[in-house]
Amino acid sequence: MKKIAVMGFGVVGSGVVELCDKNAASIRRRAGVDVQVKYILDLRDFPESPYGEMVIHDFGTILNDPEIAVVAEVMGGLEPAFRYSKELLCAGKSVVTSNKELVAQKGAELLRLAKEHNVNYLFEASVGGGIPIIRPLHMCLAANEINEIAGILNGTTNFILTKMIREGMSFAEALALAQQLGYAERNPAADIEGTDACRKICILASLAYGKHVYPQEVHTEGISNITLRDVQYAGDWGGVIKLIGRARRLPDGRLSVMVSPAFISHESQLATVDDVFNGILVRADATGDVVFYGKGAGKLPTASAVVGDVIDCVKAEHTIQSLSWSDSAADTVCDYRQTPACFYLCCRGAKAVQAVRNVFGSVRFLHREGAPAEEAAFITPEGTEAQLAAQIKQLESGGTEILSAIRVLDY
Amino acid sequence: MKKIAVMGFGVVGSGVVELCDKNAASIRRRAGVDVQVKYILDLRDFPESPYGEMVIHDFGTILNDPEIAVVAEVMGGLEPAFRYSKELLCAGKSVVTSNKELVAQKGAELLRLAKEHNVNYLFEASVGGGIPIIRPLHMCLAANEINEIAGILNGTTNFILTKMIREGMSFAEALALAQQLGYAERNPAADIEGTDACRKICILASLAYGKHVYPQEVHTEGISNITLRDVQYAGDWGGVIKLIGRARRLPDGRLSVMVSPAFISHESQLATVDDVFNGILVRADATGDVVFYGKGAGKLPTASAVVGDVIDCVKAEHTIQSLSWSDSAADTVCDYRQTPACFYLCCRGAKAVQAVRNVFGSVRFLHREGAPAEEAAFITPEGTEAQLAAQIKQLESGGTEILSAIRVLDY
Repeated sequence: MKKIAVMGFGVVGSGVVELCDKNAASIRRRAGVDVQVKYILDLRDFPESPYGEMVIHDFGTILNDPEIAVVAEVMGGLEPAFRYSKELLCAGKSVVTSNKELVAQKGAELLRLAKEHNVNYLFEASVGGGIPIIRPLHMCLAANEINEIAGILNGTTNFILTKMIREGMSFAEALALAQQLGYAERNPAADIEGTDACRKICILASLAYGKHVYPQEVHTEGISNITLRDVQYAGDWGGVIKLIGRARRLPDGRLSVMVSPAFISHESQLATVDDVFNGILVRADATGDVVFYGKGAGKLPTASAVVGDVIDCVKAEHTIQSLSWSDSAADTVCDYRQTPACFYLCCRGAKAVQAVRNVFGSVRFLHREGAPAEEAAFITPEGTEAQLAAQIKQLESGGTEILSAIRVLDY
Repeated sequence: MKKIAVMGFGVVGSGVVELCDKNAASIRRRAGVDVQVKYILDLRDFPESPYGEMVIHDFGTILNDPEIAVVAEVMGGLEPAFRYSKELLCAGKSVVTSNKELVAQKGAELLRLAKEHNVNYLFEASVGGGIPIIRPLHMCLAANEINEIAGILNGTTNFILTKMIREGMSFAEALALAQQLGYAERNPAADIEGTDACRKICILASLAYGKHVYPQEVHTEGISNITLRDVQYAGDWGGVIKLIGRARRLPDGRLSVMVSPAFISHESQLATVDDVFNGILVRADATGDVVFYGKGAGKLPTASAVVGDVIDCVKAEHTIQSLSWSDSAADTVCDYRQTPACFYLCCRGAKAVQAVRNVFGSVRFLHREGAPAEEAAFITPEGTEAQLAAQIKQLESGGTEILSAIRVLDY
């Protein structure tokens, strides 16, 4: 019998407790012993819950109970989760988490502490909810060099984009529906501005390349400027617009990491990842493209990943050495302006088509029904982000207004 | 420094040796030590190969070398692979394999031997080539009850079906092209008759449900009878034909395991798995549907899975307890005739439509351009396989000829 503690009795926390109860038999088979929740740490009381008796308010109870060897941190946020996690690891207890903010900001430090104390800090639930991605990336693909990772990492924005693409809803309408259905929070900024996706690609990049990639190093654009006009042009181009987090290693060894909306071809496996689902494509040298698909959020999917990690901690006698990365130097991530890109641009002006040709040369123009005569949409040639920004400026200074600029990817 | 041996220097074996050489640095980072190939066992000599000096012909050299702790068995076939694997495990050496035939027939026994000798028998490469599936299934999804698994598990047949669907090739033409491109062997029976897919679903089912499922217990149908007429009707129904291996647990605890061509809706993630790619859908109680996609075969994808397992063996000091299943009783797998199904039927006869209505009641008829007047295609109501077989017989005895019968699935 192994006893665990759950810190945070919100959506994910209650899922963890339920799952340990409901699937106790199969968990026992996989873990080799019974796994039982002993404490639930929360500020609130839950007199109505069947698990209400386990609820405690004092973190010290968990920290000082020698019977607790594994703790699930599902509180979210940086503090007090960071301090608690540090103290638990230093006390020789393994910690598993769904807290992407914490892993993205403090992963290197927490993994180092885990190693020093011969315990584990696992975070399968921090990316892709119930989709197995952390473990496959560092174990199953261990024999590969990872060339690139690209993912639809945020279910809320993917739901909004899907509604815009399939049902012609405006961004505002789709966001309102997402909020009504509980997919988006009342303050949806972390989702729609790309912050959430940014944390997740930081975790994947850190794991794949062995050096901590911090969110503040990653150029991040959200989807709030995407219009139905862009959706139509993407269709004419032969694809859809998705919010993509991506990371790749440049020839000089630095990393390119970015979050932005992007045109994705209908042929891509990512193009069919719709609604609140997530999809993560890993391009590795030996396996080629591998794609992982599933529910990227939600109570039970996320809880299932947390409990999977609990089982691993119960089984592991030592630190799982391979699951770690080092802190990074300032130049690990390349300035995005130096990286190559290709854009869809939509612009408006009296002689827009001629102006585009003057600046970009021969390009592929796109079409949509009902476009005003002064509108021109096209795909730029490839250049560095800085070159393209300069060309866009040139277009603007000639009197052509830029309505949209969205990257075009080849995943 | 850990030294390994590779048994079999064919396509996969040469990929394993190459990968250990080429990606030595990242393998060292993941394994914690250098991993070096010391022996390659093969009947042949390879004087032209840069690795020719490692080639040996005597299995005893590997068995008796205390420096060898891990052996990659990539010979294929039951014997001598089975005997060699047993002897290695009993001698305290871990074995990793891509040999699906051996795992599907003897997995329970080899896993038991590994456990008895506190070493590992790993087989990530036996299903889905380079796609991580074995480890995610038994580790990441460990907190779940697995309700169903359905997969496109054979790249050759998927290539043939894709050519029929996309380019209107006949089965014979598509098979000839697959052979020309090296995707299909000169004797393609193991692929097109479903034998290969059957071995793989046996491995997945055994792992998911903890009891050995033997190939001979699994009703298996191949794709050699699929016609372009069927492809057209599938399109009218709203989907495509794929060869699907599937396993699910029935309410009484027994398993339903089957391989057959099936109608799959365009909405399914499996419908977009084309060409030689594989896709595996796992329907679990907490995560919902999770899909794994990638190259299911080929030298480097398969080698990457083998080397990933080698790295795991190097790191693991003991048997990974959760990766095992027990031998099974005769009634583990339910007779397929007792399981529920739903069919697309295509038939021919003077009064086919009326005959269909008489036997099946009100059904959904399908249409295709240029269908002869006497042809009728439709979707049956759901029934047990036995009931449906009886109804088909009734139709035939009334003078209606059955041209095709293909199951309709809801993945």
